[in-house]
Amino acid sequence: MALFVYKFGGTSVGSVERIKAVAGKIKKAKERGDDIVAVVSAMSGETNRLTSLAEQMQDEPTSREMDVLLSTGEQVTMSLLSMALHDLDCPACSYTGGQVKILTDSMHSKARVREIDDSNIKKDLEQGLVVVVAGFQGVDENGNITTLGRGGSDTTAVALATALKAKECHIYTDVDGVYTTDPRVEPKARRLDKITFEEMLEMASLGSKVLQIRSVEFAGKYNVALRVLSTFKEGNGTLITYEESEMERALISGIAFNRDEAKLTITGVPDVPGVASKILCPVADENIEVDMIIQNIAADATTDFTFTVHRNDYQKTKAVLEEICKNLSAKQVTGDDSIVKISIVGVGMRSHAGIASTMFRVLADEGINIRMISTSEIKISVVVDEKYLELAVRALHKAFDLDKEDQ
Amino acid sequence: MALFVYKFGGTSVGSVERIKAVAGKIKKAKERGDDIVAVVSAMSGETNRLTSLAEQMQDEPTSREMDVLLSTGEQVTMSLLSMALHDLDCPACSYTGGQVKILTDSMHSKARVREIDDSNIKKDLEQGLVVVVAGFQGVDENGNITTLGRGGSDTTAVALATALKAKECHIYTDVDGVYTTDPRVEPKARRLDKITFEEMLEMASLGSKVLQIRSVEFAGKYNVALRVLSTFKEGNGTLITYEESEMERALISGIAFNRDEAKLTITGVPDVPGVASKILCPVADENIEVDMIIQNIAADATTDFTFTVHRNDYQKTKAVLEEICKNLSAKQVTGDDSIVKISIVGVGMRSHAGIASTMFRVLADEGINIRMISTSEIKISVVVDEKYLELAVRALHKAFDLDKEDQ
Repeated sequence: MALFVYKFGGTSVGSVERIKAVAGKIKKAKERGDDIVAVVSAMSGETNRLTSLAEQMQDEPTSREMDVLLSTGEQVTMSLLSMALHDLDCPACSYTGGQVKILTDSMHSKARVREIDDSNIKKDLEQGLVVVVAGFQGVDENGNITTLGRGGSDTTAVALATALKAKECHIYTDVDGVYTTDPRVEPKARRLDKITFEEMLEMASLGSKVLQIRSVEFAGKYNVALRVLSTFKEGNGTLITYEESEMERALISGIAFNRDEAKLTITGVPDVPGVASKILCPVADENIEVDMIIQNIAADATTDFTFTVHRNDYQKTKAVLEEICKNLSAKQVTGDDSIVKISIVGVGMRSHAGIASTMFRVLADEGINIRMISTSEIKISVVVDEKYLELAVRALHKAFDLDKEDQ
Repeated sequence: MALFVYKFGGTSVGSVERIKAVAGKIKKAKERGDDIVAVVSAMSGETNRLTSLAEQMQDEPTSREMDVLLSTGEQVTMSLLSMALHDLDCPACSYTGGQVKILTDSMHSKARVREIDDSNIKKDLEQGLVVVVAGFQGVDENGNITTLGRGGSDTTAVALATALKAKECHIYTDVDGVYTTDPRVEPKARRLDKITFEEMLEMASLGSKVLQIRSVEFAGKYNVALRVLSTFKEGNGTLITYEESEMERALISGIAFNRDEAKLTITGVPDVPGVASKILCPVADENIEVDMIIQNIAADATTDFTFTVHRNDYQKTKAVLEEICKNLSAKQVTGDDSIVKISIVGVGMRSHAGIASTMFRVLADEGINIRMISTSEIKISVVVDEKYLELAVRALHKAFDLDKEDQ
């Protein structure tokens, strides 16, 4: 008998039937003798419905009122799941973030969890109840409803697992685990039994959207064992943990990629201190997130400055850069919005040389031109033309032996 | 400059456009220099949508979880109205029942308000904000979400008006006031400028569904001036107040009726003490509400016992009575589910004799047979065949001079 926190996302609770299936899954766990705290998201579609209502009211609703509005989504799900559990003779009790209570700061729409008062939950668990908690939401010290931002239900689950010292935090979703790469691109992609927190962080931030990055950081920081599983299929999923030893054989764990990239270059910038901030601050002021950054010194004491942004921000960024180009007396702005980023990720890189050169050789052998390179301790990313995405992913998947079962 | 509590029901906030219209109405009041606390219901249709989801989960959901679920309806409205107000440059802040906080007992689905902590509201009003409060909901001392039952938003509004010592509590609805009778039955029905609390109570309990009966009781108890107005039409509505003096001229204020009645009789019951409770307790045990009750003694030391119930409960009640009939060795059970109740209501009755006889004469003149009679200090009710409803209402409306403007 152990305590588990189960988190069910919007798709997993997207209909009456699915909520009933989730209740059945929880009931089974109870019958095995486990204690369950279930964290739920809003039913899929509900957040969009509410957002659309808000947009009809005001162009930019205040984040306080948006939080009040959106938090109703999980509240509906939590009560419905409790009813479905009652219907299976499985006593349950539901709590909003404010009722738990999950105390956050006052940064509406992206609040951070400060403290969890787990007394209600513990009391209910002792009485044999399943506790259902609304994900994504909390309350600040003045009693205002806050939300934790996109994917915040994962964060709620991890925070509860930490506070309650749960054995594992299960993230139920519509995929049955973390894969070596996207199976839609490489059918030979395999589900990983385990992955380290650091690898998962790199995979998540690179567009492998299984888990929200903040929840992985949080789980890593507090060493909560995370497991990603399918709501709809039996299986053990993928365990995300610190236990590296077993995984040392694998040089790389997976190949992540991101299709939504665009690249911009400003050339002939006079190379004086502070140039990088003169370029990037106006971009940041427009709320444009910059990803990879590269700077080269040219022979004529000017510099070329290249970075990538989300493809949706391409035109906006270009306009900002044109302005900067004038102000800095730089040469010109060029760009490309048909590029993708591909990354290989693995803690094995730390102890093995030659991974980067293998990657570049494999891509060269396929005639793929590398447009940008960026590396971290456990990750190597390249930017290539988007037409090469599938070819590059499959070649790398094969070259690093990810196809093989005994990795 | 004065403080008003405005309450908007589900129809008044039933769409994006209507919520915007409500915001416009509040903005106008602010421009006149008044302070406004707005109490809102769930958008029309929303409660039914949520109830239907719940019914798909469990046959009889627990009332705690139903309250969690249903309370989201007003929470959505309150945030949308705040946004609409912001959009008109009218600063606003929204609060759930738990946030206000409106402390209730723990009787889920029909909780009673115990205490209101108005500190948040007062602080916001001082800063010139419009305060928007979710109607219908509160929180018990353990932090559980409660609801006040059908029409509970009216109760919330009256409770807030009492706590805040508001000048008037405006109930905005889809009718423009309280009428002498239903204009669909008698086109000559007139809107009353004023009506007393007691009359309003009798009118409300008799099927004139403008206001929830508990909110009228509450307003009467705390002497909060209630005004019923149309959300969609300009006008002064009907003021519900204690000031009787001006109204003394009117013998009766209105004619209420109820189409949903059914009548049952059990005859030949041995007339011994305790018979009434032996009949009515089993009926109450089935959650059947009994309205009018009449008992007659027959010549043979048996008694006939007649009462009315809601027409929906007719078959169920009949089955209960058949059982009782056997147990008590009574003669037989008869019934009629095509009857209606018509009542004349007025504080003027107290000081004027002959009102009842006028009523009976008018009905007799029209050839309408009276099946049951019941009276209270300011009300006389009769039960007649449903086919006579329109005829009876119009005849009484004319006989008591309700058609005339200077009533």
